[in-house]
Amino acid sequence: MINKSDNGERIERIKNELQKAHLDALVCTLPTNVLLLSGYWPVVGSSIAIATSDGRVVVIAPADEQELAELGWAEVDTFQPGSLAQLPDTLKIVQASLTQAVQKLGIERGRVGYEGTDMNQPASYASMHLYSASIPGLINRAMPQATLADATSQIIQLRSAMTPAEVGQMRTACEVAGFAFQLGANQLRPGLRETEVAAAFEASLSIQGVGYKQTQRAGGFAFCMSGPNSALAGRAYARSRSRQLEAGDLVLLHLNSYIDGYWTDITRTYCLGQPTAQQRQMYAAMFEARAAAHAAIRPGVRAATVDKAARDVMVKHGFGENFTHSTGHNVGFAAIGFNGPPRLHPASPDVLEVGMVFNVEPAIYIKGFGGMRHCDVVTVTPEGMELLTPYQSNFEHIVH
Amino acid sequence: MINKSDNGERIERIKNELQKAHLDALVCTLPTNVLLLSGYWPVVGSSIAIATSDGRVVVIAPADEQELAELGWAEVDTFQPGSLAQLPDTLKIVQASLTQAVQKLGIERGRVGYEGTDMNQPASYASMHLYSASIPGLINRAMPQATLADATSQIIQLRSAMTPAEVGQMRTACEVAGFAFQLGANQLRPGLRETEVAAAFEASLSIQGVGYKQTQRAGGFAFCMSGPNSALAGRAYARSRSRQLEAGDLVLLHLNSYIDGYWTDITRTYCLGQPTAQQRQMYAAMFEARAAAHAAIRPGVRAATVDKAARDVMVKHGFGENFTHSTGHNVGFAAIGFNGPPRLHPASPDVLEVGMVFNVEPAIYIKGFGGMRHCDVVTVTPEGMELLTPYQSNFEHIVH
Repeated sequence: MINKSDNGERIERIKNELQKAHLDALVCTLPTNVLLLSGYWPVVGSSIAIATSDGRVVVIAPADEQELAELGWAEVDTFQPGSLAQLPDTLKIVQASLTQAVQKLGIERGRVGYEGTDMNQPASYASMHLYSASIPGLINRAMPQATLADATSQIIQLRSAMTPAEVGQMRTACEVAGFAFQLGANQLRPGLRETEVAAAFEASLSIQGVGYKQTQRAGGFAFCMSGPNSALAGRAYARSRSRQLEAGDLVLLHLNSYIDGYWTDITRTYCLGQPTAQQRQMYAAMFEARAAAHAAIRPGVRAATVDKAARDVMVKHGFGENFTHSTGHNVGFAAIGFNGPPRLHPASPDVLEVGMVFNVEPAIYIKGFGGMRHCDVVTVTPEGMELLTPYQSNFEHIVH
Repeated sequence: MINKSDNGERIERIKNELQKAHLDALVCTLPTNVLLLSGYWPVVGSSIAIATSDGRVVVIAPADEQELAELGWAEVDTFQPGSLAQLPDTLKIVQASLTQAVQKLGIERGRVGYEGTDMNQPASYASMHLYSASIPGLINRAMPQATLADATSQIIQLRSAMTPAEVGQMRTACEVAGFAFQLGANQLRPGLRETEVAAAFEASLSIQGVGYKQTQRAGGFAFCMSGPNSALAGRAYARSRSRQLEAGDLVLLHLNSYIDGYWTDITRTYCLGQPTAQQRQMYAAMFEARAAAHAAIRPGVRAATVDKAARDVMVKHGFGENFTHSTGHNVGFAAIGFNGPPRLHPASPDVLEVGMVFNVEPAIYIKGFGGMRHCDVVTVTPEGMELLTPYQSNFEHIVH
């Protein structure tokens, strides 16, 4: 959790962003956006956060999540989502709490931003309550005299760079992921199924994560794609199958893990035995592309320039056509930041700023043969960058 | 996966429901609702399903999910969500695909139902794309001459009872969960942390599930709450902590697992060593309440009657105040069916029907001491009920 004394920078940024957009308040319901505004990552998804342009933050949370909500920096109002006396009706109950909060904050006639369009949301629990299309109506009924404005671009802007305290959370999240990579990699051997490998990496996320540096909740998703399946890893999602690892395989391990709502996106590709000449060429190109990208990262540099640095190396090694996706994207408030800077993409208009957190994921996918990706999480510092995933990043660590 | 030849009953129900509501089509974007309409459970959440009142179903899916989409029964149109030539803009790209699909189906001027309000969504992936508040605008731009109608009540109605093929999927899902309970329970011992116990139960879900009876994707979330923490299990969410199990503990294990989008909600409570007199009384009351609830289940019975059957037993044993939640709820398209029949709640107006799938979860929570819950998944049959979780349901299986 972020210390309440370390929330000043985030609140300052929210104030500035709202003032710039002439908004009196911002109302968010998606768990990742509630985290952004309040430092509290809701579980079941029925919580709402309201931040005002003068720096106040109120969270409306179900009573069952009170202890978690109070670890954040917002003033917490709770509601009882149901009872044995009557069937639960979240929308109606939350409506009443929201109306009260709005009056308390005095924003009834204000200009109020909300989550007006599509967005990404990481899995905060097995099943989530989503306000979805009810959001504008919910807010409108709570403050019929307010003016509503789609604040998606403000939310994306607020998510584009992290505060030092939030980067600290990402550092912890990446450390916990590192424990998982260490434990998982030690168990790699021919004969294991992809699903078994994935489970071995996934297990330690909560075991090592919960309680580590005050972490309340930790977990995530590991996926293993091996042999020819590793060539499919360029898709927009990963998937473990029941294929058994074989000697000589490339074994790609993709991880999206979290601590308290801060998400990682990390990949390592192992080789089961000494790599063949082709596999060596692939690794060499990938690590050279990685180094080129890292070297290009500093404040003020265009994200497209970092993409080009990696891509040029791939082209030079003859793998240009096999590096099918962008070099990286925003990571942190979700495993994949949505439409938000920085996008390390050839067509990206984004410019790197201190505190931006993103992945750098040079990759080579060769259909039918196999694929590899090395995906780190980094953050931009005044001098250049800090590597948040400083592990298993050279040849000795990936050959098993 | 459901055989394409077994989809007739679901399509028939969709037709009937749409015709009854005078809707020409139903457009759904949430993965669980796309599954309902098409038999395909989207991964990243950008897919859209359209079902018409004359029984046609079209799915718009990202190209990366084509192979999964085609295992369902819908006609599949794919889109490319992005490229290296331009930054991805899902909404714009999907807009074009939706417009085409609408024209092909000839529903441009129809009355079209959509996901108009809040709803529950199980975690289909580490991070999900949600259309959220953009849904009405997206549909409206694709068919400006159509009339939109909030179809939440139709969707809830369609999710309230499963077809025989869907019940078959639930049977498989509960079998896979049974493997996890068996493997996990065998590892219980004092000294393990709650997070370690949860990981042990969780691991086998994908290992045993993927490939089992044609299952493509399997996984889920296990949570362990032990000793005094088990008394907190009555909350709306579960959470594993780093507490170490001790001899004499009650160890409550809550599982939400899935195969291909069909979700379970199962709990077992173990005792580490011979139960004390108080623990025995609790177990006896819980199992008697369970039996009473099961005995009450048959088509035509009020869901509130089943709740009362279990609650009366708890009251008789002096645990009435400790059974703080309803006796059960809809399970299947999500771990917790949202506002949908059947709700086994004192105030429920629902009446049981063949094919309804729900949990029966008598529980006793004693603050500071501990709690227990025994949560089964059952389905209503013409004769009464079928227990989909026929394992670890008596004293011998829970004492460790």
